[in-house]
Amino acid sequence: MRVLLGSGGFGNEERRAFFRSEMRSFFGDDVKRILFIPYALHDHQAYLEALHKRGFDAGYELIGIDACADPVQAVEEAEAIFVGGGNTFRLTHDLQRFGLIEPIKRRVGQGMPYMGASAGTNVACPTMQTTNDMPIVMPQSFETLGLIPFQINSHYYHGQVWVREGDEFIEHFGETRAERIAEYHEMNSLKVLGLHEGTFLLREKDQYELLGGDASLFCAGCPEELLHPGSDLAAVLTA
Amino acid sequence: MRVLLGSGGFGNEERRAFFRSEMRSFFGDDVKRILFIPYALHDHQAYLEALHKRGFDAGYELIGIDACADPVQAVEEAEAIFVGGGNTFRLTHDLQRFGLIEPIKRRVGQGMPYMGASAGTNVACPTMQTTNDMPIVMPQSFETLGLIPFQINSHYYHGQVWVREGDEFIEHFGETRAERIAEYHEMNSLKVLGLHEGTFLLREKDQYELLGGDASLFCAGCPEELLHPGSDLAAVLTA
Repeated sequence: MRVLLGSGGFGNEERRAFFRSEMRSFFGDDVKRILFIPYALHDHQAYLEALHKRGFDAGYELIGIDACADPVQAVEEAEAIFVGGGNTFRLTHDLQRFGLIEPIKRRVGQGMPYMGASAGTNVACPTMQTTNDMPIVMPQSFETLGLIPFQINSHYYHGQVWVREGDEFIEHFGETRAERIAEYHEMNSLKVLGLHEGTFLLREKDQYELLGGDASLFCAGCPEELLHPGSDLAAVLTA
Repeated sequence: MRVLLGSGGFGNEERRAFFRSEMRSFFGDDVKRILFIPYALHDHQAYLEALHKRGFDAGYELIGIDACADPVQAVEEAEAIFVGGGNTFRLTHDLQRFGLIEPIKRRVGQGMPYMGASAGTNVACPTMQTTNDMPIVMPQSFETLGLIPFQINSHYYHGQVWVREGDEFIEHFGETRAERIAEYHEMNSLKVLGLHEGTFLLREKDQYELLGGDASLFCAGCPEELLHPGSDLAAVLTA
């Protein structure tokens, strides 16, 4: 099982360069064409063009799944798959609608490398329930690919957020991410890894590694635990 | 139809005083007991106690719906209703599970005053689809009370948010609220009123008024329009 999951937040050149280098090192030189799933955004063609323009293809040929006559067959025949970010409800809705959940699970289980960014990371979890996105469409269920046995919260940050008005920063009183994850744990039991922006989680067989940034681990009734690249991630997997 | 919808963000004493004064002016002196619905939070009893302690009862007797043998009957007999904040998925799930959607709609349609805060504001809309909350539980559907004919995004703010690390503010790259609402409009057509924190929307019959702060109006394909207390809100209602 080979899975590379990015938090999102690759919003400056330094982070984009890191994204490209991790993408290359993950897919390697043998992979030539990567099946790209753009369902999280509304305009699939514009999404593909933007990825190429901003270098998020890392030099690979990205095949948009819309260009394939049969999306299930496209998954069955893909060398590798990359699922992009946007709205996780829309992405989940379309993966379910086109019958892609089981084929992707099966192919990744057989060794096809899977890369996700933001929403594409959320759907790699057992459920999409730790997304930050707006419920713009109702999926058949919240169950998703389950390529890892715990949840990820993408774009994770500590504490309150602030809104800028001119030169002034004003505190925003909405729930923090830690509070939202605590609400998740009031009704669900899976551990949640809050991936800080610009960070990747790499899974190779049963080994997990943080790349490029930190993550905060949450479980029901435990204190938040800060993890760094090089941290032992075995704790993520223990009950 | 009398509806008072607060955005949330009543996080300092000035805003709490405003909350209390609007709550008193809305319910008036004839109302004595208000049915309180705490379903958005996990611990209902602690929620009720915290409301009293922080003065969010505005001097009224709040009757927690858990203290009533039959929640539907409690709605049928209530003088007035107040639906508190927390997680909107959990609130919607429980309102549907206990069969309260239709009774609340009918009673409010007959003149029972309804006050909502944050999640309690979201469920007053035709759907809960413009919530900011995490999908910690799957409701039967996203349809909610429809006490107003448009959507509200609570805790609305302009632009990016920033995260504070020590004395430094670091830009966060997650989607802005305006981007999330644009995603909503890619798949849905109702107008969305982004209520800034500390602001109320008052509905009296077919008149709407902003109290205490601004709101940003969004419709599919229109530019964002900033509204102030005193602004003509007729535009919210036009197709």
